[in-house]
Amino acid sequence: MNTSPTKPTENVFLKGPAFHNTKAYAALHSAAKVPLDLTQEGTLTKKRVESMKAQGAGYTFLYGFERITEENMKSLFELAQERQVLAQMKAMQSGEMANFVEGCESEKRAVLHTAMRDIFEDSFAGKGKLVEEARALVIKEHEKLKKFIQKLDSDKKFSEMIFVGIGGSELGPKALYYGLSFLHRKDRKVHFICNVDPDDVALTLAKADLAKSLVVVISKSGTTLETATNEEFLRKEFTKNGLNPKDHFVAVTMPKTPMDDESRYLACFHIWDYVGGRYSATSMVGGILLSFGIGYNEYLELLRGAHEMDLVALKDNFTENLPLLSALLGVWNRNFLGYSTVAIIPYAQVLHRFPAHLQQCDMESNGKRIDRKGTPVPFETGPVIWGEPGTNAQHSFYQLIHQGTSTIPLEFISFAEAQGNLDFDWKGTTSQEKLLSNVLAQSIALATGQKSSNPNKVFPGNRPSSILLGKRLTPRALGSLLSFYEHKIAFQGFIWGINSFDQEGVQLGKVLADRMLNIFAAKRANKPAEAFDLGEALIAITQEVEKQP
Amino acid sequence: MNTSPTKPTENVFLKGPAFHNTKAYAALHSAAKVPLDLTQEGTLTKKRVESMKAQGAGYTFLYGFERITEENMKSLFELAQERQVLAQMKAMQSGEMANFVEGCESEKRAVLHTAMRDIFEDSFAGKGKLVEEARALVIKEHEKLKKFIQKLDSDKKFSEMIFVGIGGSELGPKALYYGLSFLHRKDRKVHFICNVDPDDVALTLAKADLAKSLVVVISKSGTTLETATNEEFLRKEFTKNGLNPKDHFVAVTMPKTPMDDESRYLACFHIWDYVGGRYSATSMVGGILLSFGIGYNEYLELLRGAHEMDLVALKDNFTENLPLLSALLGVWNRNFLGYSTVAIIPYAQVLHRFPAHLQQCDMESNGKRIDRKGTPVPFETGPVIWGEPGTNAQHSFYQLIHQGTSTIPLEFISFAEAQGNLDFDWKGTTSQEKLLSNVLAQSIALATGQKSSNPNKVFPGNRPSSILLGKRLTPRALGSLLSFYEHKIAFQGFIWGINSFDQEGVQLGKVLADRMLNIFAAKRANKPAEAFDLGEALIAITQEVEKQP
Repeated sequence: MNTSPTKPTENVFLKGPAFHNTKAYAALHSAAKVPLDLTQEGTLTKKRVESMKAQGAGYTFLYGFERITEENMKSLFELAQERQVLAQMKAMQSGEMANFVEGCESEKRAVLHTAMRDIFEDSFAGKGKLVEEARALVIKEHEKLKKFIQKLDSDKKFSEMIFVGIGGSELGPKALYYGLSFLHRKDRKVHFICNVDPDDVALTLAKADLAKSLVVVISKSGTTLETATNEEFLRKEFTKNGLNPKDHFVAVTMPKTPMDDESRYLACFHIWDYVGGRYSATSMVGGILLSFGIGYNEYLELLRGAHEMDLVALKDNFTENLPLLSALLGVWNRNFLGYSTVAIIPYAQVLHRFPAHLQQCDMESNGKRIDRKGTPVPFETGPVIWGEPGTNAQHSFYQLIHQGTSTIPLEFISFAEAQGNLDFDWKGTTSQEKLLSNVLAQSIALATGQKSSNPNKVFPGNRPSSILLGKRLTPRALGSLLSFYEHKIAFQGFIWGINSFDQEGVQLGKVLADRMLNIFAAKRANKPAEAFDLGEALIAITQEVEKQP
Repeated sequence: MNTSPTKPTENVFLKGPAFHNTKAYAALHSAAKVPLDLTQEGTLTKKRVESMKAQGAGYTFLYGFERITEENMKSLFELAQERQVLAQMKAMQSGEMANFVEGCESEKRAVLHTAMRDIFEDSFAGKGKLVEEARALVIKEHEKLKKFIQKLDSDKKFSEMIFVGIGGSELGPKALYYGLSFLHRKDRKVHFICNVDPDDVALTLAKADLAKSLVVVISKSGTTLETATNEEFLRKEFTKNGLNPKDHFVAVTMPKTPMDDESRYLACFHIWDYVGGRYSATSMVGGILLSFGIGYNEYLELLRGAHEMDLVALKDNFTENLPLLSALLGVWNRNFLGYSTVAIIPYAQVLHRFPAHLQQCDMESNGKRIDRKGTPVPFETGPVIWGEPGTNAQHSFYQLIHQGTSTIPLEFISFAEAQGNLDFDWKGTTSQEKLLSNVLAQSIALATGQKSSNPNKVFPGNRPSSILLGKRLTPRALGSLLSFYEHKIAFQGFIWGINSFDQEGVQLGKVLADRMLNIFAAKRANKPAEAFDLGEALIAITQEVEKQP
């Protein structure tokens, strides 16, 4: 299907000491016994926050609120050196095989979501044959997409899109689409279907005008159970309404899958095996949605922003490499300070689904227990990622963050300006200023805490946070933001020495679900099912519940 | 404003040994060193799942997938006895002062969200003066609401609602409203505004028809910054459009707050100090939204279901007390097995915002570090609560749940039937059967794991879960589900001996945000602000970012 990933003469993903055997690990482990105390008078100063600041791709990253000293930062940079993370990032972006576990059956693929946006300048040059090939394929898809969208614009047949996909094929594109809410075309509407729950399709059918609907079905393998079921469900409904699915359905899939079939689809767009589902938002998966609902040029701007951050992730100067800085601070919090979760809080309402996308992207990538050689790791890997927008979250779970028994590191995302052009001046400040005041105040409050003679008013402080600050959430800025997190995640995988690019952990559930389905199907067909006592017992319990009055 | 909470002769919330000093604690602590191994052949059997089952208020609770023996369950019941949790629940539902920390300035209030639905039979009798008074007040509000809704139904002036509230005043009502998506009135639309981010208002203004919009403003105190700002923002927009806000705006607040003012509102509905924001979904806060968008009778059915589970929570027989069972299992996982988060996964797409509500309800209630006497507790309290609907989540973060280094207990919510009436039969099973097969299969897969010679295909298993199984998500079932979680949370607070009903932890951020706002306001007014070096530095950084090209 494609050129094989470059076989490196020396596999950079396997080089160097394991994470827990690095010299830096020992130094950090020892330093973490008495971490910096941010509650001490004179620690969290103007000077500190001004110096712990990095800039790139239009963003300013502030990390003075982390429990980290300059000395700790030095050790983290040494860790990055020892783990050769920059060489790994370069190898990944150059199409070397980055998706593998050595010595056992595993996916053996390149990881080239960065190639989906390496189309602007000569930065792809010298990156090897696969990147050049990917670039050519991407440009071909772009030509197809542009023509397709132009046709939609001129014949005006479709004013709605039903976007059918699950996991990586839904969360990222959806988060980006909502993230640019002010740019939505007013003459177009988008519906999302992901769950195999029949209610998900039924609710969309109640709202959508099928005759005017383009249905985009996304499945990299072309065989995802939920997506296939929902596609067939919709095809039946279209047919029932006298509409030919072939005139409405579009596929996004790998070449040669069962869905790559122009006899069944109005158009087929391609992704490739070196683009993981959770990293596919900048490929045609997101491309068709954003181009339809917002515009092709805005999609291109988003790619430009993502590409800019891809270049930042290649910076040798660690203090300018924003995703690496964030990755290292995350490792400090996870492995040395022992915090098991991370809350990502965008102070931007339009980013309300962005944490859910990062939850998938991070947890599916780094929720791993073996290293690149198949050995169980003796340290913690990916944390639980969760979050909701601020200021909303301040009225929800911040109580626990300030005064609970667990410490939760926070990653704030904030913008100097609103995305829309409407603001409200009241009591001497605008709403946007109120929003900014809150995110900045929270960083200080969490770090410094508060003493009080009333035990209920004591805030222990030392709750770390960082702020990623942008000017305004344009398509370009959103692309950079997405890429920032994609690379933060990849860097953490490189540091831990795990394979962040497969997802074997989802297989067992699928196998068992199939066995349960067989029981349901056998019951219906009045045939004996494969023996599975426990499964039958559980199904019997649900059927008893169903019979309740 | 109200009758004071009953002063108990003996304060049941302070009685008995502290959590970590109970006999049961010692037994559980010792037992947890070698917890039940669910991966052992013959452990997770048909018999086990059939016997570890409880039923109440239309739900079946399955907990055979937890790492728990009958012996452990006995110890947990002893813990419940020693901590007198049932007496505390009875005291709470009877209007005794349940919101307090002794010996320091604190809220000193009853906790009577259960009274919001104690309107169906004589179950309120004997519960004391405050409950009777609350009942009378609730019935009065219901009369007001019924008339108000009838008038809306007859004069047809309003076809849209703009619901303005934040935190407890938004998450619960919104989760319930979406949870009953199939019952939404087709002639009515609801918009939600919560964030002080001006984009939140701006996006609603772009969609809403103000002339036909009823604006419901929710603030218990009548002074919440975000809500007040957004209300004024909207009032200005209404006025700008030649509409009189007084004809459109409705308040839900406590008696005598600045918002309890019929000269400014079309109507004012009341809540009371004994209904916490995060427990207010069944009060008029949720009542007005559900009655407008769905129907008053459906709201009443939801209250009926909540009341049914309130009664289940009073059951002396612990094996029939579903919320208590869930609370005890949560304490086992949190304090004895050491798991720091809980994922709540509804296998029901319409419940997509329910985990966000529970996140607030649980984390704001139990994210506490001091006990009822103001002493810091030497054990963990409320965990991090998070979640997304299944099967979506299987394609997102389940990788980490199956194969990550952290163990995440899961709470599945599932229904035998879909809420809508449309299902799809494909390949021998329906979509609903596919949905059920998945949730049941996941419970088994997580518990038993899988051995393999390929290290990447090893699943360690012993990842605990429970299933709360209902027949169909009707308004009544949704009410019971909400109450199940409210009481699970309260029981955990009773076990830990903390005050689950205040939220002092949100204050410090407000104070610091005010100081930041003063800097912004002073800059604008060209006046000197109160000295705050760090705050000024941060604002200067955002303003530099704003000036970027």
